[in-house]
Formats: sequence, structure tokens, C-alpha cells
Amino acid sequence: MPSTVHTLALSSAILSAAATIFIRLGLRGGGAYAGFWINIAVGAVGLWTAVLLTGGEIDQTAGLLNLRERQPFLLAGTAETLAALGANTMFDALARDVVTRRALEIGKSFLLPGGTTAELFTVPGKVPLYLERGTPETAAETGANVGIEISADGARLCFVPGAAAVTQALRTRLERADVILFDGTLFTDDEMIVAGTGEKTGRRMGHMPIDGADGSLQALSGLGKRRIYIHINNTNPILIDGSAERGRVESAGWEVAADGLEISL
Amino acid sequence: MPSTVHTLALSSAILSAAATIFIRLGLRGGGAYAGFWINIAVGAVGLWTAVLLTGGEIDQTAGLLNLRERQPFLLAGTAETLAALGANTMFDALARDVVTRRALEIGKSFLLPGGTTAELFTVPGKVPLYLERGTPETAAETGANVGIEISADGARLCFVPGAAAVTQALRTRLERADVILFDGTLFTDDEMIVAGTGEKTGRRMGHMPIDGADGSLQALSGLGKRRIYIHINNTNPILIDGSAERGRVESAGWEVAADGLEISL
Repeated sequence: MPSTVHTLALSSAILSAAATIFIRLGLRGGGAYAGFWINIAVGAVGLWTAVLLTGGEIDQTAGLLNLRERQPFLLAGTAETLAALGANTMFDALARDVVTRRALEIGKSFLLPGGTTAELFTVPGKVPLYLERGTPETAAETGANVGIEISADGARLCFVPGAAAVTQALRTRLERADVILFDGTLFTDDEMIVAGTGEKTGRRMGHMPIDGADGSLQALSGLGKRRIYIHINNTNPILIDGSAERGRVESAGWEVAADGLEISL
Repeated sequence: MPSTVHTLALSSAILSAAATIFIRLGLRGGGAYAGFWINIAVGAVGLWTAVLLTGGEIDQTAGLLNLRERQPFLLAGTAETLAALGANTMFDALARDVVTRRALEIGKSFLLPGGTTAELFTVPGKVPLYLERGTPETAAETGANVGIEISADGARLCFVPGAAAVTQALRTRLERADVILFDGTLFTDDEMIVAGTGEKTGRRMGHMPIDGADGSLQALSGLGKRRIYIHINNTNPILIDGSAERGRVESAGWEVAADGLEISL
């Protein structure tokens, strides 16, 4: 059995509320295998070996509360993100004698259990909603909002669930990725306002739109062997099979993440 | 349309993880009505007008994080429970200018929006997992674990999602209830250990078993017009249609809460 099987299993029913990489030693086809599942899921419980956080936002962390009760794993993220967790005693249910918290340096690769490597990189974005004071900076490049690059056998995957903009540095990072999972929160910036479901634009929430001259469709044009939208809000019409917007992103070479999608690097 | 329709809608798919009463001004049959839905749900989103907490345990509070983003409602519970929330900054996502927090006195009835009254009462239990220090007292009678009595038009409902024991005072309280929703976490105290899913007994978690000489089946015998088990762990065989244990509780006059169950008082 090869030790180099690396699989992403996505659970998109909750994609709009999920922006955390869960890495687990998994079972595949009923038998143990030596690789990983990297699972974007809030609420799923499995044999997690590591959870990598891209931020401290509720939709990135609340799923951890379902993993409580003495299941050992590595809980890793930036110092900012671990501080946000530390300020919430509820996460002490993840007992520190079984769940190891580890602050990761941005830009420094680290070895995950099993041999895959990962590296955090900053992405323009904002602090979590519950840490906003007044009007926050929505496109700051800090440890509060990062992406994750996973490398396995020379192949690279970039996981960017929240991006306010694509800077030149981010574009350069994504240029070397084979697979890109990217912020697909809203199709148009004022989508929630138009739908009457919220008062905020996507940009106010730290998310660039898909559409438009400064949208991700344009910004990531031509990159990667696969580009997949994740973190999709329930107002986003790309979720609707056969919609014009779904056609637009698919014509541009994008996939829309769906339940059970698995990616082998 | 009568203004006295009071309905409980239970969502049991998540019953084992839900122990909070959500009260909402609801829509019924497509039209507005003047009553309430009282909904035991974590994760559901609706026109909540009040959320009554029986404790600060994760399964009682985490669902609140799905209600964030400027939806106004009353968030009420004991001072102990509100303090537990207050120590978790994440709940500040429920902005204090739209979500009113109100500490309730135990044993003092209060008026809910619309005219229903409610009253908190202590139930033997323990502090939330994340507030445990060393070996906690598991059957303390404090504001950390309470039940809720709802009164409407002379009819009474008692909501007790967590009980370590039935004291004489609790029995007296339940004797006047028309409907009792009661802690059905485990059928037998060592069920999770036997199933290999955990190292704790039910009593260690602050939950009395259903079965046995000191179980709830015996302790609540003969009470109420309706007795319904809620907060049922996924190891509990009463969840299985046709199981001997399901037969036992049904023969004793109990119902097992199920998705979509509605109760009119």
C-alpha cells in the first residue's frame, strides 16, 4: 500500500460555515491506509490527528467543540488565532493533556503527522467578528487570517477560505499550486443586501466577490490544475445547479465544492 | 385565531447535543400566529424571541453561535450561566445592542414575550465540562444546572435536560406538570463504557440513567399527562425502534422525542 496517498474529503453541506482544515489518519475502502484525509468540516468527528486553523472566526473554530472529550490531536494555527481560542474558556473542553496546541510561524513549513508538510501564509482579511472594535480593517495582512499550503510528493495545494484581495505575493504563491481551494463566499459584493439576508457587503466581511473586475474569477485566471470554490454562502447562486453564475465559474475552469468531494494530490 | 396556541417543536436529530429552549414567534401553516414555538434545537435559525439556557455546557450554548449577526432576541439564564458565557468572548458575536442578556432569579416566574410565563428551578447536576476543576460535585443544586417550567393557560410543562437525581423538591415540581421533558441521556449508567465510546459513567457527567432502582423510569413513575425523553445520547438503545429498551420506556408511558415533534399546551 503506498504511503503517499493524500486525499481531501470535503463536506460542502457546511462549506459556508467551515474554514478549517481537519487532518485525520483515515480509513479508506474499509482498510487502514497510511495517508491522510484532509477534511473541511464543522461537526464531523473522526480520527483527527491535526486541526489547522486559518483564523479564529466562529465558523473556523466552533466545530472544534464537537471534537471534545479526550480525543488526542494537534491543534495548530498562528499565535493570534490560538490567543483568540485561549480567550474562550469553552475550548478548555479540549483538554490540554490530550489536545496539543501549537503556534505556527507564518512562512515556515512544518511537518504534519505522516510526512506531509504545511506552511501558513498571510492573506488579506480581518479579525474575527467577535474581536471587531469599531470599523475593522478588512484587508489587513496579519496572523488573524491566513491560508495553508500543503505539500505532498512535490504536489502543492493551497487552502484559502477567506481572502479580501489577491495581492501579488498571494498570486505568486498560488501560481505554484496544483490545486487551489479558494474563498467563494459571495458571487457579487452586495449579494446579501440584495437578497435581504444581511446588511453587509462581502468586502465588509473580509471576502472579495467572485464576479467583477476585482473578483476572484479574474484574479485567479489561469492558475492551478484545479481551482475549487469553497466557503460558499447560502446566497451564492453558484450553489444552484444550472444557474447562469454556476455556468460562468465552470466555463472559467472552476469547480464548486460538493459533499464527499475527495482530492488526491 | 386564538392567541393561546403554544407549541413545542423538537428537533431530535440533535437532541443528544441540545438542551436549550429556544422560544420564537413563529409562523404556523403559512400564517403568522400569536403563540410560540418552543424549540429544542442547536443550529436551527428562526425568528427567535427568547433563548432560555438551563446551563452553560457546550451543548447548551454552542447553538447560539449560529444565531449571530444582528438577530434580536432575549438571552436568559441564571447569573452563573450568563457568567460562563461572559467568559467566552466568542459570544460577543451576539451583539449586546440587539441580543439582550438577562439574568433570571431561580424560583421567580417571569413573563416571556407574548404572555407565557416561565420559572427556573434547580436540578441536581454539575458545572460545565470546561469549568470542571479536579473532580467536580456531580449532583450539586446550584444555578449551574436548572430546569424550566413553562406555564400557559393553566397548563404546565417542565423542561429538565440534565438531572443527576430526582429530589423530593423536584418530584413535587414535576407532580404539577402536564408535560415533562426529561433527561434521557443514557439508559444504563455504564452504557458509554460498555459501548467503548467513553470512559465516563452517566453519573460522572451529571446524568442519572433511565433504568434501575434509582433511574428516571422509576423516579418519575405516574407523573404528568405526557412524559418525553429528550437529550438522548447516541449510545442509548431507546433511539432504536423496536429495541427492548424502547419497549420498556413506552410500556411505562414514556415517549421518545423525535424530529418534528410538536407539543401543544
